[in-house]
Amino acid sequence: MIKVVLLGSGNVAYHLALALKCAENVELIQRYSRNGTNTNFFDKSIPHVTQLNLLESADIYIIAIKDEAISEISSKLKHLKGLVVHTSGAVPINTLSSNINRGVLYPVQSLSIKQQIEFNKVPLVIEAEDDVNLQLLHKLASKISKHVFELDSVAREKLHISAVFANNFSNFMFSCAADLCKKFEIPFEVLKPLILETGKKIQYMDPLEAQTGPAKRNDQEVIEKHLSQLSGDHRKIYQLVTAAISKTYQHKENNHGKKL
Amino acid sequence: MIKVVLLGSGNVAYHLALALKCAENVELIQRYSRNGTNTNFFDKSIPHVTQLNLLESADIYIIAIKDEAISEISSKLKHLKGLVVHTSGAVPINTLSSNINRGVLYPVQSLSIKQQIEFNKVPLVIEAEDDVNLQLLHKLASKISKHVFELDSVAREKLHISAVFANNFSNFMFSCAADLCKKFEIPFEVLKPLILETGKKIQYMDPLEAQTGPAKRNDQEVIEKHLSQLSGDHRKIYQLVTAAISKTYQHKENNHGKKL
Repeated sequence: MIKVVLLGSGNVAYHLALALKCAENVELIQRYSRNGTNTNFFDKSIPHVTQLNLLESADIYIIAIKDEAISEISSKLKHLKGLVVHTSGAVPINTLSSNINRGVLYPVQSLSIKQQIEFNKVPLVIEAEDDVNLQLLHKLASKISKHVFELDSVAREKLHISAVFANNFSNFMFSCAADLCKKFEIPFEVLKPLILETGKKIQYMDPLEAQTGPAKRNDQEVIEKHLSQLSGDHRKIYQLVTAAISKTYQHKENNHGKKL
Repeated sequence: MIKVVLLGSGNVAYHLALALKCAENVELIQRYSRNGTNTNFFDKSIPHVTQLNLLESADIYIIAIKDEAISEISSKLKHLKGLVVHTSGAVPINTLSSNINRGVLYPVQSLSIKQQIEFNKVPLVIEAEDDVNLQLLHKLASKISKHVFELDSVAREKLHISAVFANNFSNFMFSCAADLCKKFEIPFEVLKPLILETGKKIQYMDPLEAQTGPAKRNDQEVIEKHLSQLSGDHRKIYQLVTAAISKTYQHKENNHGKKL
C-alpha cells in the first residue's frame, strides 16, 4: 500500500485526487489546501486540512500548486521523511528544498475541473534523485496511468518547448481562424469539426503525412489570393508558416529525387 | 425522392456515397469514375459506369474529383438537365461550365477512405445560382448532414483562408513539435493526448479562453530559455507567434482596464 498526501486545490489536484482514490494499493490519506478553495468539488471522504503542521506521515507527498509557490511550500516540508514531488512541466526538480527527498510527477495534459478525462490515458513524466525513490514514484504513477515516462529536468524543459508548439501555438492558430471568421462574418462553428479531426488524425498519423493545403502544394496563385485578404499578425503568420511548410515539402521531394 | 449521380472515386466520393446510400428520400442511382479506382471500397449495389455518355437522368450530379479537373469534366456535362455541383472549398462556382445549372456542395472536413466518420456531423457549405436550385441542394444536404450553411464563392474563399489556419497551420505546429521531439530525443507519443485535447477543447470553449502558456503570461524568463534551444524556422515561428499571443492578451487586459 502506498500512502499519499495531496497538496493543492486546483485543476491538477482535482484530477489526481480522483485518480488516486480509485487506484489499487494506493491510499490517499489526506489533502491539504491553504484556504479550502474548490472544496465542494473534492471527494468528502478524503480528510482535509488547511495547516501544514497537521500533515500525516506518508510515502509520497504530491504538491499540485502554482509554479511560483512550489519553492516556498517545499521549504516548509523539510521535516517530512517521505518523497516530495511537484507536478509542474516547467519547474526544475531542484526548485524543491534541498533537504527533502525530491521528485516530479508531471501530467502532460491540459486539465480542467470542468472537464472529465480518462486519467489512465494521461502521460505522466516522472523524475527522482535516486533509484529507490524513482522506483517508488514509478510504482505510484503506473497505478494511475498506462503511460509513464522517466525524464530528467533538462529533458522535461525540452518536452515543454515541444508542448508549446503542440498546444499553445496550435491553439493560437484556432484563435486566428476564429478571429478571421468574425472579421469575414462566417460562423466559426463551420470549422469546429475540422479542428477536432485535425487533433484526432495525429493519434494515428505522422503530422508530416497529415499536412494538406496550398502551402504544401506550393500553390502560389491561392497563396497570393489569401495574402491579399490578410493584414497585421495574420498576414505575417501566414507568410512565415507558409514559407516553412513549402520549404519542408520541397526538401522532402528533393530527398526522394522528385521535382524541386 | 431526389435522384443523385455521383462522379468520383476518391476520399470525398467515398464518404458521400456512404451518406447518400443511407439518406431517406434520396436515391443514389449511379456512380461514374473514369478508371474505376478504389472500386472495391464502394458499395457494389451502386451501378457504376466509366463513360460520361452513359450517365442516367438525375436531379443532382455531384462532381467529387480533383480541383484542377472540375472545369474540364463540367464542359462535358452540358447536355444534362439536372443541377451539377462540385465539392471543392477553393474553386469558385463559375469554374463549372456556364451552360449548366451550377452549384457547390463542400464538406468542410478532412476526409479519408481509411477513416470512418459520422457524416451527419460534417458541415456542408452550399451554393447555387437561383432559389429553386438552392432549395433543392439544401434539401439534399440536410438529408445527409445536420449542419448546412449557405455561402457564396466569395465567402467560401474566406472560409478557406480561415481553414488554412485552423487545419493546415495547426497541423504544422504539431509537425514542429514532432521535429523537436526527434531532435531532443523525447518520444512524441508523450504529446499525443495533449494534441487530442487541444482540438476537443475548442468544441465547447472559445480558443481565446483556451490559450495557456508562457507567451500568454508574457513570461520572458521561460521564453528566453526556450529561444536559446531553438534555431531556423522553429525559432522564427516561436518568436513571431509568441509576440502575437503576448500582444493579443496585453490588448485584452488593456481593454479590461488591467495592467499593460
